Amino acid sequence: MHILILGGAGMVGRKFIERLAHTGELGGKTIDKITAQDVVAATAPAACPFAFDAVVSDVSLPGQAEALIASRPELIIHLAAVVSGEAEADFDKGYRINLDGTRHLFEAIRHAEGYKPRVVFTSSVAVFGAPFHDKIDDEFFTTPLTSYGTQKAIGELLLCDYSRRGFFDGVGIRLPTICVRPGTPNKAASGFFSNIIREPLNGIDAVLPVSDQVRHWHASPRSAVGFLIHAATMDTSTIGPRRALTMPGYSCTVAEQIESLRKIAGEGVVARIKRVPDPVIDGIVAGWPRNFEAKRAAALGFKSEANFEEIIRVHIDDELGGNFVK
Amino acid sequence: MHILILGGAGMVGRKFIERLAHTGELGGKTIDKITAQDVVAATAPAACPFAFDAVVSDVSLPGQAEALIASRPELIIHLAAVVSGEAEADFDKGYRINLDGTRHLFEAIRHAEGYKPRVVFTSSVAVFGAPFHDKIDDEFFTTPLTSYGTQKAIGELLLCDYSRRGFFDGVGIRLPTICVRPGTPNKAASGFFSNIIREPLNGIDAVLPVSDQVRHWHASPRSAVGFLIHAATMDTSTIGPRRALTMPGYSCTVAEQIESLRKIAGEGVVARIKRVPDPVIDGIVAGWPRNFEAKRAAALGFKSEANFEEIIRVHIDDELGGNFVK
Repeated sequence: MHILILGGAGMVGRKFIERLAHTGELGGKTIDKITAQDVVAATAPAACPFAFDAVVSDVSLPGQAEALIASRPELIIHLAAVVSGEAEADFDKGYRINLDGTRHLFEAIRHAEGYKPRVVFTSSVAVFGAPFHDKIDDEFFTTPLTSYGTQKAIGELLLCDYSRRGFFDGVGIRLPTICVRPGTPNKAASGFFSNIIREPLNGIDAVLPVSDQVRHWHASPRSAVGFLIHAATMDTSTIGPRRALTMPGYSCTVAEQIESLRKIAGEGVVARIKRVPDPVIDGIVAGWPRNFEAKRAAALGFKSEANFEEIIRVHIDDELGGNFVK
Repeated sequence: MHILILGGAGMVGRKFIERLAHTGELGGKTIDKITAQDVVAATAPAACPFAFDAVVSDVSLPGQAEALIASRPELIIHLAAVVSGEAEADFDKGYRINLDGTRHLFEAIRHAEGYKPRVVFTSSVAVFGAPFHDKIDDEFFTTPLTSYGTQKAIGELLLCDYSRRGFFDGVGIRLPTICVRPGTPNKAASGFFSNIIREPLNGIDAVLPVSDQVRHWHASPRSAVGFLIHAATMDTSTIGPRRALTMPGYSCTVAEQIESLRKIAGEGVVARIKRVPDPVIDGIVAGWPRNFEAKRAAALGFKSEANFEEIIRVHIDDELGGNFVK
């Protein structure tokens, strides 16, 4: 099979490709080729058992989406997006990439006669905006408070309508905050959720800018890849017209994150977390969802970690080769 | 003040313009001019106390939205839409008019420096799709089952985002089914809700294609005009970022509609309703919302009829000069 991944150079895209390189198949079908599109060149995984084509393009430009689907990939994973902060800072760019780019892709597929691929669209819990119930259920309305969240909510609506009309077979997955993100600390307001685990395990101090009592919704990078694989291979005959799904995750407080780190890595590692309150970050985080009741996704077979210790262990296994700095 | 009405030649637009011609003012401000845009020429109301400009154009075409707002109307009422059946039959036309047209309008406003009009966007309960709760509350998610409903839901999201960013001051109103629609029977699946009242009052037989037990959500044309006026003049300082509102209405069964007609007009009029079951219409109507709990709109001051007898009396007063055929 041939798989097209838009946004294939990002963290989740790279991990997805690495997993496929390891298995060589998806849903029982041998993978012949992966096309990884992004605005920068995606690198082929080591020991790659399939053809790998890195395409640098911008699907918001005319003709680019048509070129990407010309060879009719059976599966399209759409991860490409201008992130939240950038979409808020640059209104035009956010709408151009996140809305027009998505619509161009969907339109290109619609106009390709006799072509009906599976399309997995990654959305975000940013489609929701405060005030919330403590647990957001599957029927809660989307009231985004960012342009990014608006663009993702529109993408979900288009995905459902194009699927209902039979132009493709879409599944929309709203990812939790991915924790522990590999790499180095970045300036994303959500960065500290990962920083306070990743950096101490590397022997480096990390800043905690919010209260211990802040509650958030997490899943590991391994779970994110699992969501993509399940969305790509699941039986959609019973999914019905409501195809945008809040993915399962684990809700916990920062205090529970720290307690889990203490159990796994000990007091010395936890001591590397430095409390430096930042009222700006505190304010941003106050508007974020804290907890979900993602029953539909669970019923449809999506799985994530059951506790935060598991999330830390996934990080130690997948990123640190099983070791950390005591 | 100068008011721009997109879709000004339609039933609700015409009634709104007639009301303004009667009062000559809106929210205490004298109306100097109304520009009524549509794909066909809107006709000026009789005894029109303000300048009236009928513009025939298509806002989905480049430059048309910019031309309409060039004189900076303080209030924009956006009623223009390809209706449900047509948007379903002609996918491209629906998205072009209902999505692109709306976005062009919003973009033209955004690019007009120092301009921040009130924008009233008429949406529809078609943003909801079955299965529903018996009463749909204000936090229920939008799961449209038509392209029209999808386009309206996207319009709502854009309205909220553009308002949040400060480009205009938007209010979105989801209209109930308007009953009793004046005019002659049309082929809309919802037509019978009006036909079974209007035609018998005119001495003409009408077909009832569904069961007495079908429940639906109604407001009169007079209420629809009232919603527009309130949305145009209300204080939006406390509305918050959730600007798409389900309008109040009255939920009743067809049996209650008929019983109300019997009370007001007598058995002879009711006898003109002929039961001719149509399983196709029955199937369509089964997917429609039956009842709402429109608390937010009520709290914000929107008002509608309290029972179906009132809806019939509005029709007899406004359309029949107080008389009907016994």
